[in-house]
Amino acid sequence: MMQFLKRMSKKTGLSPGSLIYVGEKKVESVKVNVIDYDEEHVLEKEVTDVHECFEFKDTETATWINISGIHDVGILEKIGDHFGIHPLVLEDVMNTHQRPKMEDFEDYVFIVLKIIRFDVEKNEINSEQVSLIVGPRFVISFQEREGDIFDPVRERIRKGKGRIRRMGPGYLAYALADSVVDNYFGLLERLGDVLEKMQLELMDAPRTETLQSIYELRRETILLRKSIWPLREVVGGLERGESSLFAESTRPFLRDLYDHTIQVIDTVETVRDMLSGMLDLYLSSVSNRMNEVMKVLTIIATIFIPVTFVAGIYGMNFENMPELRFPFGYPVALLVMLGIGIAMLVYFRKKGWI
Amino acid sequence: MMQFLKRMSKKTGLSPGSLIYVGEKKVESVKVNVIDYDEEHVLEKEVTDVHECFEFKDTETATWINISGIHDVGILEKIGDHFGIHPLVLEDVMNTHQRPKMEDFEDYVFIVLKIIRFDVEKNEINSEQVSLIVGPRFVISFQEREGDIFDPVRERIRKGKGRIRRMGPGYLAYALADSVVDNYFGLLERLGDVLEKMQLELMDAPRTETLQSIYELRRETILLRKSIWPLREVVGGLERGESSLFAESTRPFLRDLYDHTIQVIDTVETVRDMLSGMLDLYLSSVSNRMNEVMKVLTIIATIFIPVTFVAGIYGMNFENMPELRFPFGYPVALLVMLGIGIAMLVYFRKKGWI
Amino acid sequence: MMQFLKRMSKKTGLSPGSLIYVGEKKVESVKVNVIDYDEEHVLEKEVTDVHECFEFKDTETATWINISGIHDVGILEKIGDHFGIHPLVLEDVMNTHQRPKMEDFEDYVFIVLKIIRFDVEKNEINSEQVSLIVGPRFVISFQEREGDIFDPVRERIRKGKGRIRRMGPGYLAYALADSVVDNYFGLLERLGDVLEKMQLELMDAPRTETLQSIYELRRETILLRKSIWPLREVVGGLERGESSLFAESTRPFLRDLYDHTIQVIDTVETVRDMLSGMLDLYLSSVSNRMNEVMKVLTIIATIFIPVTFVAGIYGMNFENMPELRFPFGYPVALLVMLGIGIAMLVYFRKKGWI
Amino acid sequence: MMQFLKRMSKKTGLSPGSLIYVGEKKVESVKVNVIDYDEEHVLEKEVTDVHECFEFKDTETATWINISGIHDVGILEKIGDHFGIHPLVLEDVMNTHQRPKMEDFEDYVFIVLKIIRFDVEKNEINSEQVSLIVGPRFVISFQEREGDIFDPVRERIRKGKGRIRRMGPGYLAYALADSVVDNYFGLLERLGDVLEKMQLELMDAPRTETLQSIYELRRETILLRKSIWPLREVVGGLERGESSLFAESTRPFLRDLYDHTIQVIDTVETVRDMLSGMLDLYLSSVSNRMNEVMKVLTIIATIFIPVTFVAGIYGMNFENMPELRFPFGYPVALLVMLGIGIAMLVYFRKKGWI
Amino acid sequence: MMQFLKRMSKKTGLSPGSLIYVGEKKVESVKVNVIDYDEEHVLEKEVTDVHECFEFKDTETATWINISGIHDVGILEKIGDHFGIHPLVLEDVMNTHQRPKMEDFEDYVFIVLKIIRFDVEKNEINSEQVSLIVGPRFVISFQEREGDIFDPVRERIRKGKGRIRRMGPGYLAYALADSVVDNYFGLLERLGDVLEKMQLELMDAPRTETLQSIYELRRETILLRKSIWPLREVVGGLERGESSLFAESTRPFLRDLYDHTIQVIDTVETVRDMLSGMLDLYLSSVSNRMNEVMKVLTIIATIFIPVTFVAGIYGMNFENMPELRFPFGYPVALLVMLGIGIAMLVYFRKKGWI
Repeated sequence: MMQFLKRMSKKTGLSPGSLIYVGEKKVESVKVNVIDYDEEHVLEKEVTDVHECFEFKDTETATWINISGIHDVGILEKIGDHFGIHPLVLEDVMNTHQRPKMEDFEDYVFIVLKIIRFDVEKNEINSEQVSLIVGPRFVISFQEREGDIFDPVRERIRKGKGRIRRMGPGYLAYALADSVVDNYFGLLERLGDVLEKMQLELMDAPRTETLQSIYELRRETILLRKSIWPLREVVGGLERGESSLFAESTRPFLRDLYDHTIQVIDTVETVRDMLSGMLDLYLSSVSNRMNEVMKVLTIIATIFIPVTFVAGIYGMNFENMPELRFPFGYPVALLVMLGIGIAMLVYFRKKGWI
Repeated sequence: MMQFLKRMSKKTGLSPGSLIYVGEKKVESVKVNVIDYDEEHVLEKEVTDVHECFEFKDTETATWINISGIHDVGILEKIGDHFGIHPLVLEDVMNTHQRPKMEDFEDYVFIVLKIIRFDVEKNEINSEQVSLIVGPRFVISFQEREGDIFDPVRERIRKGKGRIRRMGPGYLAYALADSVVDNYFGLLERLGDVLEKMQLELMDAPRTETLQSIYELRRETILLRKSIWPLREVVGGLERGESSLFAESTRPFLRDLYDHTIQVIDTVETVRDMLSGMLDLYLSSVSNRMNEVMKVLTIIATIFIPVTFVAGIYGMNFENMPELRFPFGYPVALLVMLGIGIAMLVYFRKKGWI
Repeated sequence: MMQFLKRMSKKTGLSPGSLIYVGEKKVESVKVNVIDYDEEHVLEKEVTDVHECFEFKDTETATWINISGIHDVGILEKIGDHFGIHPLVLEDVMNTHQRPKMEDFEDYVFIVLKIIRFDVEKNEINSEQVSLIVGPRFVISFQEREGDIFDPVRERIRKGKGRIRRMGPGYLAYALADSVVDNYFGLLERLGDVLEKMQLELMDAPRTETLQSIYELRRETILLRKSIWPLREVVGGLERGESSLFAESTRPFLRDLYDHTIQVIDTVETVRDMLSGMLDLYLSSVSNRMNEVMKVLTIIATIFIPVTFVAGIYGMNFENMPELRFPFGYPVALLVMLGIGIAMLVYFRKKGWI
Repeated sequence: MMQFLKRMSKKTGLSPGSLIYVGEKKVESVKVNVIDYDEEHVLEKEVTDVHECFEFKDTETATWINISGIHDVGILEKIGDHFGIHPLVLEDVMNTHQRPKMEDFEDYVFIVLKIIRFDVEKNEINSEQVSLIVGPRFVISFQEREGDIFDPVRERIRKGKGRIRRMGPGYLAYALADSVVDNYFGLLERLGDVLEKMQLELMDAPRTETLQSIYELRRETILLRKSIWPLREVVGGLERGESSLFAESTRPFLRDLYDHTIQVIDTVETVRDMLSGMLDLYLSSVSNRMNEVMKVLTIIATIFIPVTFVAGIYGMNFENMPELRFPFGYPVALLVMLGIGIAMLVYFRKKGWI
Repeated sequence: MMQFLKRMSKKTGLSPGSLIYVGEKKVESVKVNVIDYDEEHVLEKEVTDVHECFEFKDTETATWINISGIHDVGILEKIGDHFGIHPLVLEDVMNTHQRPKMEDFEDYVFIVLKIIRFDVEKNEINSEQVSLIVGPRFVISFQEREGDIFDPVRERIRKGKGRIRRMGPGYLAYALADSVVDNYFGLLERLGDVLEKMQLELMDAPRTETLQSIYELRRETILLRKSIWPLREVVGGLERGESSLFAESTRPFLRDLYDHTIQVIDTVETVRDMLSGMLDLYLSSVSNRMNEVMKVLTIIATIFIPVTFVAGIYGMNFENMPELRFPFGYPVALLVMLGIGIAMLVYFRKKGWI
């Protein structure tokens, strides 16, 4: 649960730029896929030796190199050498505790994104890091494990339909980032289902477990928020055209992406507000029930304590208690008790308690 | 209730700019109205084929094309082609989960607004999206369904009175946006009635239902706030004259609109503060009643528990209890009990409890 | 109470710039006063026909036209026509739901201010709108009703002492705004008295009514804050010399006014903090009393419940209860009960409850 | 206590720049001290007639005129006339309700500071106003009463050691402001002692008085914060070199002063956080004790109520109650009661209540 | 505990720039280490007389002078004189209550950092000040005591591997600052362990001590936050290249350091949020237990109070109580009591209390 606090210090004392994998190893072997395309042709292959994809670096065609699995220092170093990537960038690719960020190294742009998955069963949020290196004629994407999140993009390239084949690596990078943001909408929808279920539960019969899960969801939302907030700056930076690697014609799409990002952030904030509201509602409904319990106790106690006292009096064994010998002593005593009880009830009704 | 979280992912995996309707279909068939006017004449017609309104695009007169119903991809595509609208704009028109925004595409300005309705019965707020495309000689407005919100504008054009016939599409766009903001004032007024009713209820006899409806209204206010806040930037952007499509003479009107927007936002904030205050008041009045209940219980119990104990003592069956045989044992015992009771009452009075 | 939410929609559907009075009519007939002055002379007259004050528009002397009562559309239109005021400005003059604002129309500056009165009896805050139109040689002021707030300014002009006669309309406008801000100091002082009374009440004997009035005052403070905050921008804008109608020599005075405005805002914030502190104090003192009540109940109950049980045992009617026949059975039983009671008291003392 | 709200309106209706003393008169007669110095010589004298210090205005040497007591309008007017001070500045000098501020009048800089004293006995914070007028060759300081806060500066000038004799009026002004900020460190230290004492009290035995004093200290901290916050802008403004009266070589000292100011503000914020934490701790410790009380009540009551009922049954006087005649009826009844008690205790232990 | 408020005033009244040690003396004697290196050679020595390191000032090689122990005024003054350090900088080096800051004195840059240690046993955070003076060919570092935090940097210089030997004093300063930030990651990890342990405790069996330690940890987090926040500006300032002493090639490393700083701040914020969540959870779990206690009391009391009353009735000694003589009086009474008890239980079940 405190995962966000863990293993941060693995690298303490190392020289900066030292490559070391920081994170859980999520996949056995590294897979490298290359898609090389222009308006006319598409070439797709899975390479076993990373050298195979070096030839695409300076071709006129756009090249997308996707690397699933980022724990193999050797492969990253080779790519870094060939494509002229700064060691600190490679270090960041391997360190999965990055916040989303965008860095412009003139020759290429380095983008870190987060894919977030909501584990409905455990009510838990997991994040996975996606890094993009966008060069003039290529995009290199790094994923922690083979994922299906980029499949629609791949499909669009293969089918050759749409702008994607025409508009080069900048647009490709946009399309990949767009997939990541689209993924958040799915996540928020599933969160919405959980929220709705909780709300119904809350109205029906609030239980201690409901409270527990509201708190958990709130904690998850805090973490989610932390992952998504910096995205705003990342996409905003791209949209303001800070890098020349993104063509002017890509600008409206980046603006659209920015709008989506804002919408995601907005929704996360709304979820937070909703959760606070649900907490408040839970707490005040609990305190309402408590009040009801107290009232019942008070009513029963305050009716019976005085009449029990009356019964106690006539249970005393004094020799000289004239009432005990009155022929109607007993029924009168009963009537007195009844009277006290009714008086109490009338008082409570007047007070508005019953 | 979690509507704001729903159906967001319908478009996941589609190429950006793909037209697909995201929202509830609120009207059967699409209606297209055209009003073409200048200072001299007005021409108003309902077209069945969208091609009929294309001729107005480049005329010197101002043209207002109003489209009610936005689920028909075909019509939007035709309009988009003819008027040179960017596919992403059309996508946004059809996606009713947009936040209010303003985008300047040099040739035209794209504005997204929200009409908000307050359903008094359900205590619920619904929003409807209105998109405006403002060109040099035309305004195209898209509504989710046929609404009466623009009727006063239509009426003013027909009657030919006022500036509206003189001042071109920029002023028309202002007038439409003004109608939307005016609509918020009505909404806030109805909200004010509900608030007032609640407050009276709260002072009179706070019930659990009151709490529930305060919470609901608060949630609605949060959503309302989210819809209205971005409007500030939209109108502010127009007012700062970021687009040349709005003439200098329209500027004071946009400033006026900006003032109204600020006023709306201000009022929403005040409503939020009021609701918080009402919640606090409710909670502390509930806790006050609880205290009163506790005090009554304590007073009754602490008076009768000791005297019942005294009665219990003389109800014991020991053979050798001299008091039982005293001629005045019984009245003395009664007096002792009375004394204890009075002492307790005096103590409570001193404590300020009764 | 929800007055701020009311009558906002009166104008919905009207063409912008339509003159209609929005607010309560606070005065029967409109009064127009003119003071025309320069260093040498003063001319003061009450005009019955608004045309009488038109002649002063272009004279070299400074002219102050004060209009009490703003519900008469006719008079405002005439003034607007003659002095060349934008219709939207006149509309704002008549709409008393404006926030304080400053608008620069090159030829003149339009300023909206709020006079706030504190009704000590009703514990309520009422606001009144004052609009100023500052031209090169004239100031027109609009008040909702005849007020005495500007009397000291009038007096200073009449007496011919001080800068006011030398420094023209810009300084006059400053003097009027200064009167309005001075009025807030009086208001805050009266608020301070109420606060102090409340605090004494709170320390002495907090009652439910105290709570109620703290909440009410807090609500009023929220409204007060909303009225005063925008003033900061208004005066700040004047001070930064955004308009050339205010001479350089007026600048130090505007800075002084700005300081006062900040001081007012600061004090309102402090009042808010004080009220929050008083609320917290009230709530925790209530909860303290509750705890005391609970403790008394617990002590009485836990002492007497066990001993009553002992009495109950010897009140049983079993034939074979040897203790009942012991000669010292009764005093021993009494001693046992006493022992239990003392043990309880010792326990409570150890716990620190008594 | 509401002192900050008082006497603000004394000046309402007066012409701006009218000199009137606003504040409590803290000293009988005004004292004027002059120190005139350069690297070579020091001249110190106490003047009885304010005219005596006028000669120093235009000398090449640096002159420090210190005025203790600011209620004498005559003296201030004379100084104002001779040194060419704006009437509004004199007005501000006499009005002790200013916030710290810095105003640049080209010929001189006007600085308002606050000395704050913590009255340990009353647990109260008092503030005193210090105004500085820094000219090209002189500094005039105004204090509400004769204070020892500037003594170390005086001493340093007399001893002729350090930069102070070399660096002119700008550095002198810095030294005076530095004394004021140093004074805050002493204040914060004394506050720290009070806090520590409170915290010990809180851990040991929280009493209602502790709560009261936490609230009081919190209120004082709010006021303290209000006095110190604006200082940041004042010193920041000086440091950014907005005025040419402060030599470039004074800049590092002003930066140092700025650092100290930030540190003071920081510490005040930390004190606020500490106080909030202490409040939370107090409230939850109170609620913990309450829970303990409730538990004891519940345990005693739930053990004895059922067994008392059993005793009540055998205290009934039915003629036909066979158990009463059983030889072992009594001990069996006692055992049953014991069993009920033990069962209850076991249940409570299982619940974790005892 | 209130250490942050202590000893601040030690220097009050002294001339600025006076050297006096403010802080606890943490080491007996001052140790001075010099490492002089370039790409070709490394020279490392511990000097006993501070003069020995003066020769390195203007050599072409990079020199790192590390001083452990900052209470010796003599040594600091000598260094200050020789290296031309401003007296105020030396004053700041000796005053351990500085916030992290960066000051650019053209010839050199002065950086203050904080090392923070978490004392797991005392659950307490201690901070130590590290000052860096970065000149064109040298770095002087000041530590409060000999620490091992810079050992990895020393090691890297000795081994001659990596950039550190090539890139001069700017990079060395970066490496030292990086060590300090890396140290925070270790700290946060240890904090994470404590948090996790607390959370388990909280879920298992929340005790009063848990609450106490949550509050303590929260207070520590507040202090931690105060120490780390200003770091953002420090590193940000370096990264924006405000000083020419940091070569362009060091820029990416500073950006990396900035990222790490943000990550640390982010994590501290998350820890804060987590702690708030844990507090809320604790408080509501406590209130849940309280409710359970109340319910048990209410159920027991409301079942037995009425039936005890019935028993009390038939324990009365009236002569004329016919029921007592009915042959089935006793069992009928028992059945009536049982009936009342069952009715109560049914009622509670219907209410959902059991």
